[in-house]
Amino acid sequence: MATHNLPPDPFRTRSLAAYGEDLRSGRVSAEAVTRAFLDRIEALNPRLDAFIHVAAEPAMKTARGIDQLLAGGTDLGPLMGVPVAIKDLFAVDGMPTGAGSRLDVEKDIGPEGSFIKSLKRAGCILLGKARTVEFALGAFNDTHPLPWNPWSPSLHRMPGGSSHGSAVAQAAGLSALAIGTDTGGSVRMPASYCGTVGFKASPELWPKDGLMPLNPVIDSLGTFTNTVADACYAYAALTGDAEPRSVAPRTLRLGKPVNYFFEGLESEVADAIDEALSRLAGAGVEIVPCEVPHVNDFQDFYLYGGVTSVVGYLGGERVKREYDLIDRYTRDRLKNAFDYSADRYVALYRGREAMARAATEAIRGLDGWVTPTTVMVAAPFEEIAKGPKRAEWIARNARNTRIFNVLGFCGLSFPLVRSDLPVGLQIAAPARTEARLLAVARTIEDVLGTPPKPDVSGFLEKKGRGEMT
Amino acid sequence: MATHNLPPDPFRTRSLAAYGEDLRSGRVSAEAVTRAFLDRIEALNPRLDAFIHVAAEPAMKTARGIDQLLAGGTDLGPLMGVPVAIKDLFAVDGMPTGAGSRLDVEKDIGPEGSFIKSLKRAGCILLGKARTVEFALGAFNDTHPLPWNPWSPSLHRMPGGSSHGSAVAQAAGLSALAIGTDTGGSVRMPASYCGTVGFKASPELWPKDGLMPLNPVIDSLGTFTNTVADACYAYAALTGDAEPRSVAPRTLRLGKPVNYFFEGLESEVADAIDEALSRLAGAGVEIVPCEVPHVNDFQDFYLYGGVTSVVGYLGGERVKREYDLIDRYTRDRLKNAFDYSADRYVALYRGREAMARAATEAIRGLDGWVTPTTVMVAAPFEEIAKGPKRAEWIARNARNTRIFNVLGFCGLSFPLVRSDLPVGLQIAAPARTEARLLAVARTIEDVLGTPPKPDVSGFLEKKGRGEMT
Repeated sequence: MATHNLPPDPFRTRSLAAYGEDLRSGRVSAEAVTRAFLDRIEALNPRLDAFIHVAAEPAMKTARGIDQLLAGGTDLGPLMGVPVAIKDLFAVDGMPTGAGSRLDVEKDIGPEGSFIKSLKRAGCILLGKARTVEFALGAFNDTHPLPWNPWSPSLHRMPGGSSHGSAVAQAAGLSALAIGTDTGGSVRMPASYCGTVGFKASPELWPKDGLMPLNPVIDSLGTFTNTVADACYAYAALTGDAEPRSVAPRTLRLGKPVNYFFEGLESEVADAIDEALSRLAGAGVEIVPCEVPHVNDFQDFYLYGGVTSVVGYLGGERVKREYDLIDRYTRDRLKNAFDYSADRYVALYRGREAMARAATEAIRGLDGWVTPTTVMVAAPFEEIAKGPKRAEWIARNARNTRIFNVLGFCGLSFPLVRSDLPVGLQIAAPARTEARLLAVARTIEDVLGTPPKPDVSGFLEKKGRGEMT
Repeated sequence: MATHNLPPDPFRTRSLAAYGEDLRSGRVSAEAVTRAFLDRIEALNPRLDAFIHVAAEPAMKTARGIDQLLAGGTDLGPLMGVPVAIKDLFAVDGMPTGAGSRLDVEKDIGPEGSFIKSLKRAGCILLGKARTVEFALGAFNDTHPLPWNPWSPSLHRMPGGSSHGSAVAQAAGLSALAIGTDTGGSVRMPASYCGTVGFKASPELWPKDGLMPLNPVIDSLGTFTNTVADACYAYAALTGDAEPRSVAPRTLRLGKPVNYFFEGLESEVADAIDEALSRLAGAGVEIVPCEVPHVNDFQDFYLYGGVTSVVGYLGGERVKREYDLIDRYTRDRLKNAFDYSADRYVALYRGREAMARAATEAIRGLDGWVTPTTVMVAAPFEEIAKGPKRAEWIARNARNTRIFNVLGFCGLSFPLVRSDLPVGLQIAAPARTEARLLAVARTIEDVLGTPPKPDVSGFLEKKGRGEMT
C-alpha cells in the first residue's frame, strides 16, 4: 500500500469560531478544509475504522458550493462550511443507513430527519457515516468491527460506545464536529475514552425523527468537539440560543457526590479527577460534597427498557427470524425483551418523573454534579472481547453515565489528559439547562486548559494492521 | 322525601360571556349562581347521579370570595366565578379522588395537577367530582353506578362514557362548565348521548399531571358546555389564545367520509345528520365526499394499549391482588394486558405518527371531517347491562370516535335535537388546530342554532327511583 502524505488536522488549534472568520475573510476555503479531512480519512480510516461510509464526492461538491455561496454573498450562518461526521444511526439522504447492524433497517428508519436537515440548512458539509454499536445498544459488539482508540496505535483499545465512530473521528482529527446519540452514556463514554469533548443534550432538546430509536423517552442527541468553546458555538448555532460564555470560577458551586460515583476508580482516573478538582478549587470554584439520589434505580431501564423498545421497533417475529444476523452480544441483551410483559414495561417508566423531580431538587443551589465519566481508562479490546475481564468491564463501563439519562439530565464529558490515556470529567445538570451546563463546562475549560489531541501518525496505513510499528 | 323547589339553571339561556358581564355589573352574584347549582344538585343528583362528591361548603366560600374580590377591584379573568364540575379522574385538593373505582388510587394519582390549578387561578368555583367509568376505561361498568341520561327521566338510558358524570351535570344544568377526558371518545360520546357540546383538545394542548392516565400518548382533556360559543370562550380563557369566532359559512369546506363512518346508523341518527348537513349546505357550506385513512387500524390501541397502561400504572401484582374489587367489565378488559408482551406494546405505538401524517395529508384543503359522533342514540341501560344487545352495543359505541384519538386529532360533538333523544354531529381536525376547529363548530352552531336543553323536572327527588311518574 502507498505511503500517505498526512495533511494536518485543519482544526487542531483552530476553533469553529475562528474557522468561520477565516472562511469569510478568504484565508481558508471550505474546499481546502474538506479536502484535508477526506485525505486524512483516506490515510487513517483503514486502521482507525471510524467511518463506515465516506461521502467524498457529495462532500467536495457541497464544499465548493459553500465557497461559491459565500463569494456570492450568501451566508448560511455560524456552521457554514463545517465538515461533520454523522453517527450511522441517523438517516442521511444519499448515504446508506446501517445502524451498526447486518439487518437491513434502512426502510425502518426511513428518510432523513429534522436534525440532519437542520445541519444541512446551516451549511454543514457531511463527510460520511461514523460507526455505531449495533442499534446503539451498549459499548461494543462481539462480531462487528470496532474502531480503534486514537490514543493507542499499537494496541487495539476500547473507544467506548455506542457513538464510537463519531468520537474517534473527532479525536483523530477526521472531522470538525461529530454527531452522536446518548441513551446511557453513548456520547459521554466514548468522549471519555477517546479524549474529546462529548456533550449530551436533554432528550427533548433536538428532534429525533429520522434516526433509529433505542429508548425513545431518554434518547438524546449530542456533539463531539475539540473544545467546550466549540460545543458552545455549535449549540448556539443549532438552537438559536445565545452562545454560552464562561463565568467567573469563584461564582461556581459544583457538587462532588459522596455516594456511588467515586467507587472502584482505576488509579489513573482517581488521580486525574483529583488533580482537576484541586485545580478548580484553586481557581475559586467551590466543590461541595453532596448526595445524588436514585443511583441504584436505573438498571431495569437498561436490562429491559431499551431492548424492549428495539425489539418492539423491529418487531419480535423479525428479530427471531433474523436472529443469526444479529451480533452475539446484542442478541444476549435483546433476549430480555421476549419474556417481558407490557404492564411491567409501563410500570418501569412510571416512576421516572418522580426520580427526576427528586434529583432536580437535590441539585438545587449547585451548578452541576461532577464525577468521573467512566471509572476506567480505555481497556485493551482483547480483554473485553474474549478475556476474563469481560463481565466486570461491562458492569463497570456505563455505571456513572446511565443514571443521568434516566433522570432526563443533560451532561458533558471533559477530557483530562495527563499521560497516555485520557480520563473524562463528567458534569451533569437538570433537563433543559444546557446553556448553563455549557457555560459551567466552558469555565472549567478556562481553568484546566484546552484539551490536547492525540498524535495519530501511528495509524498511517503503511503501518497496516498486520505490521509491527 | 321532601319535595324540592327547583331553581332554574342560571345558564339555561345565559352564555359564559354574558355571565361575565352580569357578574361584573352586579346583576348577578357568584354566590347566588353557586347556590342555585348546589340546590339543583341537591334536588336532582339523587336520581341523575352525576356527582359522586359535592363540595358545597368550599364552593360557597369560594363564591363569596369571588364576589368580594370583584367588589374590591380584583378581576381574575373571563372564567372568574364560573361553577365547574370536574371528572373524578382528576385530583382536586380537598376532595376525594376515586377514578370510578373501589380500588384506592388516591395516592397513585397524587396531588392536584396543573390544569385544575389553572381553573382555580382563573377564579372557577369547583362544585365537586362528577362520576367516571372506572379508570375512564370504556363507556359503562357492570357493577358500579351509572348516571341517568337527563333526556329520559322514566327509563334509565345510557349517558355514554367515560366522562358521563360531567356530561350529565352539564346537560342537566348542574354546572356552567364541566371538565372531562377523552381517550377513545370519553368526552364526545357522552356529549352525543346527553345532548351537550363536547370538545376534546389534542393530547398535547393541556397538561395531564394530577390525573389518572389511561393511555398517556392519546389521553386528552376536554370541556362540556351548553354551546360552542361557550366552548370557544372557555378555550380562550384556558389557553390565552384569542377566542375563536365564526366565519362565513360559504368559506367552509367540510369532508363527509364515504367510508366507514356512516355504516349501520340508527335511523334517528341518519336522519338528524342528513338534515343538519342539508341545512349547512343550504347556508353555503361545501360538503365534500372524502376518504378517511386508517379507519381499521385503531382496535389494538383499545384492546391492548390503554389496558396495559392501566395495569402498568397500578402494577400487575396489585391488579391481581385486588381483582375482586374491580368492576366485572373493567376486569374483562384488563385481562388483555396480562399476556401482552412489551415488544408488541412498543410496536403498537410505532406506526401512530405515520398514520397521523397520512390523515393530516388526507384532510388538507378541508376545514374538518364531519361524521355522526355515535351511530346510536342513548340505549336503555338494561339492554346493555344484561340484555342480548350488549356485545353489539359495545362494538358499535366508540367506533366513530376512537380513530381520531389514535390520530392525535382534536374534535367536537355538536348536539342535534329533533325529538326525544339527541344525536351528535362530530367534527374532527388535525392535532393542535383547536382554534380553527372551534371556529368551524361555532359557524355550524350559527347555522343550526343553539342546542336546546332537556326538561329535567322529571328527575326531582319526589319522583324517586322506585316510583312511577
